[in-house]
Amino acid sequence: MSIVSLIEYEDASDDVRAVYDDIMATRNIDWINNFWKALANDPVSLKRTWESLKQVMGPGALDPLVKEMLYVAISMSNDCDYCIHSHTAAARGKGMTDEMLMEVVAIVGMANETNKLVGGLRVPVDDVFL
Amino acid sequence: MSIVSLIEYEDASDDVRAVYDDIMATRNIDWINNFWKALANDPVSLKRTWESLKQVMGPGALDPLVKEMLYVAISMSNDCDYCIHSHTAAARGKGMTDEMLMEVVAIVGMANETNKLVGGLRVPVDDVFL
Amino acid sequence: MSIVSLIEYEDASDDVRAVYDDIMATRNIDWINNFWKALANDPVSLKRTWESLKQVMGPGALDPLVKEMLYVAISMSNDCDYCIHSHTAAARGKGMTDEMLMEVVAIVGMANETNKLVGGLRVPVDDVFL
Amino acid sequence: MSIVSLIEYEDASDDVRAVYDDIMATRNIDWINNFWKALANDPVSLKRTWESLKQVMGPGALDPLVKEMLYVAISMSNDCDYCIHSHTAAARGKGMTDEMLMEVVAIVGMANETNKLVGGLRVPVDDVFL
Amino acid sequence: MSIVSLIEYEDASDDVRAVYDDIMATRNIDWINNFWKALANDPVSLKRTWESLKQVMGPGALDPLVKEMLYVAISMSNDCDYCIHSHTAAARGKGMTDEMLMEVVAIVGMANETNKLVGGLRVPVDDVFL
Amino acid sequence: MSIVSLIEYEDASDDVRAVYDDIMATRNIDWINNFWKALANDPVSLKRTWESLKQVMGPGALDPLVKEMLYVAISMSNDCDYCIHSHTAAARGKGMTDEMLMEVVAIVGMANETNKLVGGLRVPVDDVFL
Repeated sequence: MSIVSLIEYEDASDDVRAVYDDIMATRNIDWINNFWKALANDPVSLKRTWESLKQVMGPGALDPLVKEMLYVAISMSNDCDYCIHSHTAAARGKGMTDEMLMEVVAIVGMANETNKLVGGLRVPVDDVFL
Repeated sequence: MSIVSLIEYEDASDDVRAVYDDIMATRNIDWINNFWKALANDPVSLKRTWESLKQVMGPGALDPLVKEMLYVAISMSNDCDYCIHSHTAAARGKGMTDEMLMEVVAIVGMANETNKLVGGLRVPVDDVFL
Repeated sequence: MSIVSLIEYEDASDDVRAVYDDIMATRNIDWINNFWKALANDPVSLKRTWESLKQVMGPGALDPLVKEMLYVAISMSNDCDYCIHSHTAAARGKGMTDEMLMEVVAIVGMANETNKLVGGLRVPVDDVFL
Repeated sequence: MSIVSLIEYEDASDDVRAVYDDIMATRNIDWINNFWKALANDPVSLKRTWESLKQVMGPGALDPLVKEMLYVAISMSNDCDYCIHSHTAAARGKGMTDEMLMEVVAIVGMANETNKLVGGLRVPVDDVFL
Repeated sequence: MSIVSLIEYEDASDDVRAVYDDIMATRNIDWINNFWKALANDPVSLKRTWESLKQVMGPGALDPLVKEMLYVAISMSNDCDYCIHSHTAAARGKGMTDEMLMEVVAIVGMANETNKLVGGLRVPVDDVFL
Repeated sequence: MSIVSLIEYEDASDDVRAVYDDIMATRNIDWINNFWKALANDPVSLKRTWESLKQVMGPGALDPLVKEMLYVAISMSNDCDYCIHSHTAAARGKGMTDEMLMEVVAIVGMANETNKLVGGLRVPVDDVFL
């Protein structure tokens, strides 16, 4: 249960509605997911977070699907329930197959394993990597 | 400083050498990095970890560079010094530019921010994502 | 579902009841929350944890509300469901408004983002900070 | 060692210099710390991160020192070397004493302990907190 | 809700069934838990993970119960709901009492506290430990 | 570099010296490690932490070496440099061999891998475990 209220479009102030409108236009959808409705309790933070996300996930050197899978991978590694569900849905919308999803989670698992092995044994970084 | 000794090729047992040889052949290099030299204190674990890594990072549905960038991203999110250095080097060897690297780290940062925002506010997952 | 039983006041031993009584007296309430009922399976650990918490969160250089918001912030950063709910309730009881809560979570998000950016890029600490 | 180059003011492009100038003006200092010099490899990300940080840490419902101590606390909980050093310096500049610092770290430690105790035992959240 | 389907024995391919059979034979049980049913979406990953787990948790220098309690402790520290439940059940099957469980969780809590205290204060490692 | 001064025995107040004396007597050693010297900046916190650690790691249902290896495992999973070094030294002093150490780190790695696999795929807990 959210610790703040979820602000619906009809109850939102004009500045919140402006962000909601931009989210729906940018994503070509007609609804707002709960994350934004919770953040809307702080309209400035809502706007900042949305603008940041739009920029980070927007056009760049990396393919949009690759960006989305990176987001899924971090969310899995952080065990973030909401984020795994929402970003997996987004990645699937951009073409991620079940086979690709299983490879992403396998890398998440393997990286966490070797991260702990090398850190646990305090292995010094090889000069050649520096 | 490593809490176990690093086992050099010339001091290694036959089963450790067999893994070292396979690492060098697979990667087409003539040296072994410290991670494997530390793991070699447990030859069975060394072989298992190498075989697993080779499989996870081998041919599949995802591009090798994408796989390597996913590994870098998790290592950054986990703040693993050794892994960031070694996997960034590997990703650069496969074509990652500085521009791509900066996009990877931006996504790592952004995902960690929104993971905490949504978790911190205990936002319920929208039905449509389930 | 808890992996140990929750020990109610009426089923508790004398030493557990003594801690329960002190919790209720210190907080001026007439009930015990589930955290303590679970810890009560180890009466020595229950007493130690309560005494420690009472000391750490007791009078000092920092304002009680500030202390509680620090607790909320760490719990959010660790994605601890129980702790977010219980410490948010406590902070609200001490005067935290929704506006303050939204600022706390914004800092939690931002700190997690920059922590990962700076760690991900392995930025060396400036001499002036040392 | 940073995995990207640190961009000095004299080598920076105009848009990077504009951010550097704003950082120095806002903080009333005449130098730039390494975090920004690393981020400057992606000028858009540099500007976004600085603007976000300025907003999150700017005037609001919480006292500036409280905000800075929350930042320190998260950085400690995340074991971020750079961030602990830089934000502790900032907090001291705003009036944090050693006594207050020791209380912050004590809360970080205690919150991490109880977060793990309650999560480890899978204690259900009391209805009254929901 | 799982983001992939859970593959039941009757719907499984021959290679998945072979792993399921080995799991049931090794553990002397007649059912498969959900973790393996989810991993079965990638039969190669399923086989690799099972073989690795069997090796890591198999006979060695450490007692099987000690190994299982180490697994429980890490799972608690990582706040992994599924893993705490499944490995606690396994540890109890190998003789872990409630008293032992409470000591495990107390160490998990204490280690997380002191890990953060020492890291938060950036305490240098004593030469004698190196 | 520590962000607080390390307090030596000869500069310590009487209440700090009393804790130092108890640490040395309990452990039968004639020196104090840096962790306590840093905590000594808050004598009440120093005393509380030492008393807690002594209790948690003292006689109980689990063998002292098992307790120490659990501490090592958590510290490895948390990537705590100081703690890995100090608790590995302590565990070796109680009889941990290199073979046992390699098994501990293998379990830390494996548990982190499966924790992320099961969490990443959002696998529901089997009823039989509840």
